[in-house]
Amino acid sequence: MKVLVINAGSSSLKYQLFDMKDESVLCKGNCERIGVGDSLVGYKNYKGQEKTIKVEMNNHTEAFMQVKELLTDPEVGVISDVKEVGAVGHRVVQGGAIFHESTVVTPITIEKIKLLSPLAPLHNPGAVQGITAAQSVFGKDTPMVTVFDTSFHATMPEKAYMYAVPYEYYEKYSIRRYGFHGTSHRYVSGKLAELLGKDIKDTKLITCHIGNGSSITAVEGGKVIDTSMGLTPLDGFMMGTRSGSLDPSVVTYIMEKEGLSAKEMDTILNKKSGLLGISGVSSDDRDVCAAEDSGNERAHLAHQMLYYQIAKTIGSYYIALGGCDGICFTAGIGEHQTHLRKAVLDYLNVLGIKCDDERNETADGTALLTTDDSKIPVYVIPTNEELVIARDTQALVEKNDK
Amino acid sequence: MKVLVINAGSSSLKYQLFDMKDESVLCKGNCERIGVGDSLVGYKNYKGQEKTIKVEMNNHTEAFMQVKELLTDPEVGVISDVKEVGAVGHRVVQGGAIFHESTVVTPITIEKIKLLSPLAPLHNPGAVQGITAAQSVFGKDTPMVTVFDTSFHATMPEKAYMYAVPYEYYEKYSIRRYGFHGTSHRYVSGKLAELLGKDIKDTKLITCHIGNGSSITAVEGGKVIDTSMGLTPLDGFMMGTRSGSLDPSVVTYIMEKEGLSAKEMDTILNKKSGLLGISGVSSDDRDVCAAEDSGNERAHLAHQMLYYQIAKTIGSYYIALGGCDGICFTAGIGEHQTHLRKAVLDYLNVLGIKCDDERNETADGTALLTTDDSKIPVYVIPTNEELVIARDTQALVEKNDK
Repeated sequence: MKVLVINAGSSSLKYQLFDMKDESVLCKGNCERIGVGDSLVGYKNYKGQEKTIKVEMNNHTEAFMQVKELLTDPEVGVISDVKEVGAVGHRVVQGGAIFHESTVVTPITIEKIKLLSPLAPLHNPGAVQGITAAQSVFGKDTPMVTVFDTSFHATMPEKAYMYAVPYEYYEKYSIRRYGFHGTSHRYVSGKLAELLGKDIKDTKLITCHIGNGSSITAVEGGKVIDTSMGLTPLDGFMMGTRSGSLDPSVVTYIMEKEGLSAKEMDTILNKKSGLLGISGVSSDDRDVCAAEDSGNERAHLAHQMLYYQIAKTIGSYYIALGGCDGICFTAGIGEHQTHLRKAVLDYLNVLGIKCDDERNETADGTALLTTDDSKIPVYVIPTNEELVIARDTQALVEKNDK
Repeated sequence: MKVLVINAGSSSLKYQLFDMKDESVLCKGNCERIGVGDSLVGYKNYKGQEKTIKVEMNNHTEAFMQVKELLTDPEVGVISDVKEVGAVGHRVVQGGAIFHESTVVTPITIEKIKLLSPLAPLHNPGAVQGITAAQSVFGKDTPMVTVFDTSFHATMPEKAYMYAVPYEYYEKYSIRRYGFHGTSHRYVSGKLAELLGKDIKDTKLITCHIGNGSSITAVEGGKVIDTSMGLTPLDGFMMGTRSGSLDPSVVTYIMEKEGLSAKEMDTILNKKSGLLGISGVSSDDRDVCAAEDSGNERAHLAHQMLYYQIAKTIGSYYIALGGCDGICFTAGIGEHQTHLRKAVLDYLNVLGIKCDDERNETADGTALLTTDDSKIPVYVIPTNEELVIARDTQALVEKNDK
């Protein structure tokens, strides 16, 4: 089966076509700036052929039309008919208390995902646009599956997922910690157990997904027992543009002083805080690094805060797990920013963790970052959420066919 | 010198008279329900004589009149003339970015404390009432000193006290972590170093003040490097009626859904959350214990959450300090609730900490809670904020006299 994996945001659409025979990627790409002008589609196939088309895409349906053209393009395409796409798997950020596992798309699924949009206003509406657009372009007969960022975290115990606010809000509005990046944490925790040569059932792992959005997860015996993101992807520690968790009075105090509505405050904490808010430079860690190198004190502070908050989160999960067999870094910053890994590992010296500076500096792809005598081995593992989505999609579609 | 120490809340006034010759307590007591009806004054002197007077007290000045009467009472009093009170020391919760140390009261001091009230709306207004009432009863010639809950935390590094919100809010509104219970953390960290037989300059300590309000502090070389309370006493982990830190979207989401103002939300998070909000039973841990014992599941959950959050905070400070030489519990719950200490210490097994169940159960006053081979000794140390306030008051008044 060939499975098309879609990760749709409000103005973007990432796609990847898998041949599930050998789990190889036939092609992948990204539609950018959908509906905001100057939009373009990137494409690259398994032979290395690339194409970038500047074309106006006003909505996700028009974006899918472009993807369909590229997949079947006589020159760079990888399939001859769009019907070869056996199923489409969609990433959805917030599955709330409704979706504890990946699910075949029905009209009711879409309605439920819409209902959960207030919990992930930056993400869920884009996913719905992606699903309906995919249906209109690939036809209703192509089975579709949604894979939720929250599902892997459904095993968290109550003590970890409850917030200490009046219990009625949990009952009325399902306010609790959900966690996100679940597909990524699931993938890298599985890989990490493999690298340790252990059955995941016998492991205590801490997985650090550090990107523009970031979260850390404590995984015991293959099951999540705690994770830093919460009701929304704003919880946890600071990120590119997000504050992470706060003294709630910081929220109400700023609102009062600035005369902001709850929505306006939410936007500031989601889009103008974190590395960007502190450094005043950028939400992109590479820009913050450049600024720090040129002596920008606020860029330096932003980094010091980020390293410290990550290290403290790992420390809290070390206690939560009652020990740790392995730690890994993944995602944009985790896979590429050696300075961050070095700083965090130095904080973890007290746990017997020893960073091997050369290994850290030269790591490329999956790699060990610690010395051979480090009490806890720490790896970098490139994440592959798309592959997990493709696997879940194939499995569910084949199960449904039986 | 005899020093009267005052801890004034919005409807209460705790007092304690010290003879600084030997730091002995001559008498102490509490005025309760000031201005809310059915008010009463409790009194106990060093000989053990006690008195409780049911008397209407409409404001803090009327409360001080009662205290003055009791101090000089021919039967149970401990001084013959109120002029024997050489100085009055006042506890003030929020010293903001203004007060980095204890300060002699001037009219400007009072104005500054008022200005800081939005940062501690539950506490600072009561302190101001206490100071002005004390001045009107004891006369302006009696020197007064304010001792701030925040001062001990003034040594925190920027990476620990900054929130990852837009930097302008720090510049405009001084939004940052301040920390509270500083007088208590200062006292018990000093005692803990003594018990460990070490110069505090050579120690890494974690002090847990667990009461109706709770905070944990990481102290390195006698200086605070991090603390769990923040801009306000709402930050950190859950408490009797407070939520602790949250995903900021929990705040804005509930506000939107319930149509609450920032002030109303703040009240819910300060007064209806924490142990009370989860258990639905009480903010008093003894009531929560009784409910749990009788099978109340939400009371059980409230405890599980509290233990877990305390343990995770300690874990994060273990990393922040890069190790730990000693831990202590203090304040209402920390000094008396053995179940909590036991549960938290069990979480800390992984750090080589071993709870000695008998020592924990029978601890009375200052006591070791861990086994002799515990890698990190853990103590219970009754706090004595009043003594610290009395010492600071005497020292400042004597310095001013020179």
